[in-house]
Amino acid sequence: MNSSDPSATPPKADKATVRRHNLSLVLRTVHDEGEATRAQVAGLVGLTRAAVSSLVDQLLTDGYLTEWGKTFSGQAGRPGTALKMARTGAAGLGVEINIDYVTVCVVDLAGTDRVRLVERMDNRSAAPTAVLAQAARIAARAMESAQEQELRPVAAELALPGLVSGGAVRQAPNLGWNRVPVEGLFAQALTALRPAHRALPVSADNEANLAAMAELWFGGCAGGDGEPPLRSFIYLTGEIGIGGALVLGGQLLRGAHGFAGEIGHVVVDAEGPACRCGARGCLEQYAGQSALLRAAGLDPESGAAGVAELESRARAGDQRALAALEDAGRHLGRVLSGAVNLVDPDAVMLGGAFRVLMPWLAPAADAELTARVVSGLWTPGNGRLRASSSSGDAARGAAARVVREVLADPAAYAARRTD
Amino acid sequence: MNSSDPSATPPKADKATVRRHNLSLVLRTVHDEGEATRAQVAGLVGLTRAAVSSLVDQLLTDGYLTEWGKTFSGQAGRPGTALKMARTGAAGLGVEINIDYVTVCVVDLAGTDRVRLVERMDNRSAAPTAVLAQAARIAARAMESAQEQELRPVAAELALPGLVSGGAVRQAPNLGWNRVPVEGLFAQALTALRPAHRALPVSADNEANLAAMAELWFGGCAGGDGEPPLRSFIYLTGEIGIGGALVLGGQLLRGAHGFAGEIGHVVVDAEGPACRCGARGCLEQYAGQSALLRAAGLDPESGAAGVAELESRARAGDQRALAALEDAGRHLGRVLSGAVNLVDPDAVMLGGAFRVLMPWLAPAADAELTARVVSGLWTPGNGRLRASSSSGDAARGAAARVVREVLADPAAYAARRTD
Repeated sequence: MNSSDPSATPPKADKATVRRHNLSLVLRTVHDEGEATRAQVAGLVGLTRAAVSSLVDQLLTDGYLTEWGKTFSGQAGRPGTALKMARTGAAGLGVEINIDYVTVCVVDLAGTDRVRLVERMDNRSAAPTAVLAQAARIAARAMESAQEQELRPVAAELALPGLVSGGAVRQAPNLGWNRVPVEGLFAQALTALRPAHRALPVSADNEANLAAMAELWFGGCAGGDGEPPLRSFIYLTGEIGIGGALVLGGQLLRGAHGFAGEIGHVVVDAEGPACRCGARGCLEQYAGQSALLRAAGLDPESGAAGVAELESRARAGDQRALAALEDAGRHLGRVLSGAVNLVDPDAVMLGGAFRVLMPWLAPAADAELTARVVSGLWTPGNGRLRASSSSGDAARGAAARVVREVLADPAAYAARRTD
Repeated sequence: MNSSDPSATPPKADKATVRRHNLSLVLRTVHDEGEATRAQVAGLVGLTRAAVSSLVDQLLTDGYLTEWGKTFSGQAGRPGTALKMARTGAAGLGVEINIDYVTVCVVDLAGTDRVRLVERMDNRSAAPTAVLAQAARIAARAMESAQEQELRPVAAELALPGLVSGGAVRQAPNLGWNRVPVEGLFAQALTALRPAHRALPVSADNEANLAAMAELWFGGCAGGDGEPPLRSFIYLTGEIGIGGALVLGGQLLRGAHGFAGEIGHVVVDAEGPACRCGARGCLEQYAGQSALLRAAGLDPESGAAGVAELESRARAGDQRALAALEDAGRHLGRVLSGAVNLVDPDAVMLGGAFRVLMPWLAPAADAELTARVVSGLWTPGNGRLRASSSSGDAARGAAARVVREVLADPAAYAARRTD
């Protein structure tokens, strides 16, 4: 009785559409397996050997796959050659523009982070156009490195700490941005620098969404060590703002307008301190970096250096630091318990600064979650409250999303080749 | 760049599976259209006239469809006969067991509420087995009425105010139930009353989930008057407890363990009054029926009669009643703003007692939502905060879910016929 609403049949597919779909199917199979022979691919996708061979030939020609060594299958001839994802050619470009840094990374078809360039700066003090122009310069430098490695980014995805829709940042309270058409401005800045990049498609999303996808694709969620992969979790970034994202059943929850996940602006105390969003008493004012640093007696604007200092003070047993962290953990736990009661995830993942401060935040947060999650499924230290892995961040998630798009329709990106 | 993760191809389907699928497709098409000729069905589903005729013949034989009159299509012969959903035969049985009432309803294949039986009682004062036995007696009476109308419920779905999983109520704080195997106990009680009902499959779900589905299928969400249908909303029941459900993109969000939607236990004030769930300061303690009635100076246990009295006092301008409603509305709005920031729905629907008290709850709730929804998409009186429609409730949603299962696989339910 619990199946969902029956859906309509898919539209009819013509031969060319079927071949495009099957190209993707074969490419994704090799991607997921890491390495596979044509025979193995045929077995996994349920197509004939002849059909798979024809598809593989096209994927080799387009530079998506490479042949690699020989497997000793006991059978004669070519079929024993292993296929792998190409380490050159099509790649994804991810550009995270955050409050006090810009990170650019290039991810290859296998998902490996091949180029990473991080520059720290205060993006609150410059105009949006200047910040985007600077990000474009950093991206262009990363693309030079990529080019030397024979990687060719086919699209760029921007990650931004705010509400993103229709190619624009609708609102990014901590940057002070309102209605900034980021996709267009970044594409323009990149084209001005490198006219050859004119055709590079640019898209944008919220940084917490992309960090959560990186966690899903590359982090502890991916399973391993006999653990089942995590498919449903709430993800919190711990940057200057608190970003959030919901991944439910392996899918990012976007919401009706693309603005889901704004856990940083859930109210803690309706009469609390004013928040940059315009309301009062939001979680960010209790557990955001500035609030935490201020409560610990540190410079609230000291950013990553301040967080490192807070960590070392907590480690040394500094009472004020410990009290500030316990208090923030308690507020995090209260707001998270409401979120868990609402969406019933498998876990909550804390990223960014929260990740390093986890040992001192977690006990109080866990106690609140245990007391308030009504299903009774939360018990202290049951491993549901986790630090995010260090292998994924918003920039990698952004670049990897471009790669996923290539995997979903390789023919579309092969056609776009100009080099 | 925003498409979701590419999914694998569906498994291969044999001929019998395809026919079963197509039977459902034709039946759902007639259901959605209300009335259609074979030619219209063929056009809508993309199958040949001959194939549709064969499928329709089987659906007529199995009693799912009826032929109705003639349409004057200008063409000769049978094809102009209109097909409609049968008003007899397979039906759904919905049984809502709430804190102070039991509602049973029988819904036919067209979705019409054909039998409805409501009995008021205090289910907190009896043992779970006694309550389920009483609900079975009410269901048996409703099934007698259904039988007289030549309706044959093919399955029963229970709606309960608590956390439901694996056929049991895990916890229903307001009923005081813990780990009650409701599906088994209800089936047993029904079989004891009417041995002929032995084979009736019984399933169970949370009442807010089912009320939300009724709202999606039959309520204002269904569109009409040129308005697009609402596909994403938060639904709140206003019974003695506050139940909640999230419908996102037309799908009920169940969560990783089936416990999503528990908005009644989101914290308002961590130091607030003790809640039946074991925590402190949950929304239910500020905006639930008992809290509202107490704040208005009425007997907190007076239930529906108390709500009616509260409504009439508010209408008469009673200051204490108005203050209690404003206060509850403010707390509702604060918790809802957090939920809206998290899942970004199109609307919030208030059901049950909230529906009738809406005129006095809405202004304060709307003001909080406007101040706190960070996307800026909430403005006072923009119609996003709505009273649920009166045409759907949990019992109808439960019965309609059975009907949806029949529509999804009519062959399975035809085979089960014993009469």
